Amino acid sequence: NYFEMSYKHLKCITKRSRYVSKTATKSVSEFEYDAPSMKTAVPGPKSQELLRQLGEIQNVGAVHFFCNYEESRGNYLVDVDGNRMLDVYTQISSIPIGYNHPALMKVMTNPNNVSTFVNRPALGILPPENFPDKLIESLLSIAPSGMRRVQTMACGSCSNENAFKTMFIWYRNKERGYANPSEHEVDTCMINQSPGCPDLSILSFMGAFHGRTLGCLATTHSKAIHKLDIPSFDWPIAPFPKLQYPLEEFVRENAQEEARCLEEVEDLIVKWRQKGKPVAGIVIEPIQAEGGDNHASPDFFSKLRNIARKHGCAFHVDEVQTGGGTTGKFWGHEHWGLDDPADVVSFSKKLLTGGYYHRDELKPDKPYRIFNTWMGDPSKNLFLSEVLNVIRRENLLEVVTRSGKALLQGLYTLQTQYPHILSRARGQGTFCAIDACNDATRDSIMIKARNKGLFMGSCGEKTIRFRPALVFKEYHVHQLLNILNDVLAEHK
Amino acid sequence: NYFEMSYKHLKCITKRSRYVSKTATKSVSEFEYDAPSMKTAVPGPKSQELLRQLGEIQNVGAVHFFCNYEESRGNYLVDVDGNRMLDVYTQISSIPIGYNHPALMKVMTNPNNVSTFVNRPALGILPPENFPDKLIESLLSIAPSGMRRVQTMACGSCSNENAFKTMFIWYRNKERGYANPSEHEVDTCMINQSPGCPDLSILSFMGAFHGRTLGCLATTHSKAIHKLDIPSFDWPIAPFPKLQYPLEEFVRENAQEEARCLEEVEDLIVKWRQKGKPVAGIVIEPIQAEGGDNHASPDFFSKLRNIARKHGCAFHVDEVQTGGGTTGKFWGHEHWGLDDPADVVSFSKKLLTGGYYHRDELKPDKPYRIFNTWMGDPSKNLFLSEVLNVIRRENLLEVVTRSGKALLQGLYTLQTQYPHILSRARGQGTFCAIDACNDATRDSIMIKARNKGLFMGSCGEKTIRFRPALVFKEYHVHQLLNILNDVLAEHK
Repeated sequence: NYFEMSYKHLKCITKRSRYVSKTATKSVSEFEYDAPSMKTAVPGPKSQELLRQLGEIQNVGAVHFFCNYEESRGNYLVDVDGNRMLDVYTQISSIPIGYNHPALMKVMTNPNNVSTFVNRPALGILPPENFPDKLIESLLSIAPSGMRRVQTMACGSCSNENAFKTMFIWYRNKERGYANPSEHEVDTCMINQSPGCPDLSILSFMGAFHGRTLGCLATTHSKAIHKLDIPSFDWPIAPFPKLQYPLEEFVRENAQEEARCLEEVEDLIVKWRQKGKPVAGIVIEPIQAEGGDNHASPDFFSKLRNIARKHGCAFHVDEVQTGGGTTGKFWGHEHWGLDDPADVVSFSKKLLTGGYYHRDELKPDKPYRIFNTWMGDPSKNLFLSEVLNVIRRENLLEVVTRSGKALLQGLYTLQTQYPHILSRARGQGTFCAIDACNDATRDSIMIKARNKGLFMGSCGEKTIRFRPALVFKEYHVHQLLNILNDVLAEHK
Repeated sequence: NYFEMSYKHLKCITKRSRYVSKTATKSVSEFEYDAPSMKTAVPGPKSQELLRQLGEIQNVGAVHFFCNYEESRGNYLVDVDGNRMLDVYTQISSIPIGYNHPALMKVMTNPNNVSTFVNRPALGILPPENFPDKLIESLLSIAPSGMRRVQTMACGSCSNENAFKTMFIWYRNKERGYANPSEHEVDTCMINQSPGCPDLSILSFMGAFHGRTLGCLATTHSKAIHKLDIPSFDWPIAPFPKLQYPLEEFVRENAQEEARCLEEVEDLIVKWRQKGKPVAGIVIEPIQAEGGDNHASPDFFSKLRNIARKHGCAFHVDEVQTGGGTTGKFWGHEHWGLDDPADVVSFSKKLLTGGYYHRDELKPDKPYRIFNTWMGDPSKNLFLSEVLNVIRRENLLEVVTRSGKALLQGLYTLQTQYPHILSRARGQGTFCAIDACNDATRDSIMIKARNKGLFMGSCGEKTIRFRPALVFKEYHVHQLLNILNDVLAEHK
């Protein structure tokens, strides 16, 4: 029995950890802790010493604290000073089913898997025997509507970079009627010049985050510090709707705001075509995450998709943060209810491997156009297969939907209680957020909460974002809300 | 005893494999096979069936055959049809110490390591306790001359993209005297416009390969198919010396050719400064690999380094393919004999993790400027530490030097025997290459050799490149040369 094997193994390497009693009715997995437990302020003395050491090697200005991943369990992250925190940020939303899930430990202890970890192949030239099967049982089993083709990549930025390339290639092939490129195109591309390297563009939205490599960064507009001093492309940037909350009180205003943004999108497409830099693709997140958890209505996305089709632009939905079940559906765009929601869907983070799906018509016409040495990592696909098994077996999408409702309801209550501090509670599944009155208050709330054992993330200018793992149960929601309430009560 | 554990384990999962007798004097590791063994033409029927299946999901035009990585050992790659080939391409030069090395299997079976694989952290915000130590014992223990800072990344392209960003940030900080950016810069960068997103450039060389994401691709000029239809930057491209062989017969001509290229570099730097797109950095490979294994003299690199310094450009040496011991030294640039060879050195492939070293003065001034979700993968650092142990324990740099001499000597002999087919044998360590008279002949030689059990790579227009693992012994050199000789004899 693998579960027992890995469970014993878990016990053996974690003898210092405390276990939840099996008789408890709390809906936590039996391998998890039952609550946060704090020993020092965070970062504690051991974290501070390690910070000094790492500072000799790297910029450590973004480091919160150092972790003891061996001791971390489920929703609880343990730091090197022995502090155990309820983690609702989960490594920037990239831990799908909590820390040290027994099912993933099982993958590691299965001798059949060793070779996959030890021999990383160049997937584009020498794939392993089980590669088609593994893709079918993992990524293709959750493929977005209308998509049967998927390309794995190592990370989110590489996924988006290659998704952009796929759209450019598709667009130019359309333009030249699928004929071979001219000699002039072949020659000019070698020296970065048009027509071989054409002046095509990707339309993105203000507040978007699509990654930090140079191509991605040209579509990222969330914070100046990400972009300052880095050369970019003259690509069009449309406004993303700024919805007013509570939504039910601003139905007309929000509809007008979305219409304004869509009109601007069409104007930009026309303007950039006239400029000689046609829009080959539109890229958008179902919920702008890094930019401040900005939502738009299904109607907005549906109309945007139609605009893309009308103007011959590919429609790329970036699900790097929204994908993987956190909204209560596997893909954020499923909430739009469209039969034909996208041409390209990129992913990473909770899916453990990066990559993107695309429609058949966007498949590259020749080899080596979309290519690199590794093209992903089959050891991540192994983990993903097991994550998907757990999501199905433990009905985690339902768990997310249930916990998400409780979380959002709790945030509504808190903002009613503390209207001078909190506003704009919003979310889908457990992909929730709430705004503080300003960034200093937001940061202060986060630090106080952390010292009480609740680790959250921030985004936008003054937003707290909640990104728990899919194993975040209602019991954890209540822990979160209790701590947050304590912090706010003191703040008041 | 871990070694025994993992060795037994290896036996248990590979019961079908044949072992080399311990009494053999052949200098192969005891876990390896002793020779190629072919059952079908390559790709065989099982590979062809899998190719059809994978073709439903991805473009498979670059796939050679499907592999049985479980059965592969050391220098021998086994395919799904039971063919066992001497592999001198090693997953596009990315397998450092051969397939299924017992030391790496040991890493997998060590229970202390399980958590590192199962819980991938966001290294930039929540590093694991042992992260500084692991960096010190792995990457910093092999740091290039004058470098004490290193940033890990997921792959080669991300490493170069972030190395470019590091140089841009450094250059702009110099330009504005390390003052804070102006409000205008902060505003304009959000919309991709200068001065916030400045018109800076990276100078690269014709024939270079630095990756395929949009920033990297603007410095890649090896094959048109990589660049066609992808928008690019107007950045300067200098000629890379085209040396004539044998070197000793063309000393004067080659010195003139290198001087011509260096002169062009200086001209371009001046020209692009006048254009308003100053060169922030120069990027170069110690040996242009993908572009055709093009070498230049230490004198060329030394002068280029001086030109960079003279004009205030950072000097970035891309060691993604040359790094990791394959030239007989840990870094290709060590062969130049300079005290101060580079400002930035990027790596990936054989180092298993991507990343780059840089001088102290290039460290980013603020957090989140060089950042992404994962910033590498500590499980790759674990493997790298063990690879470095093996390199030291088994004196693999000496092995490479010895095998490289034997290989190059053998290639000289072959090109003397077959002067109408082969020319320009060249190399450093086992990083060797030879040209065929044309691409059709090159391709035909490679296919015939593969069917006799020798798997090689190609590069440039008509070049065969040899990229064996560091465990490639003289015994393997002789196998390689024997097969190549047989193929050429038939071709004659």
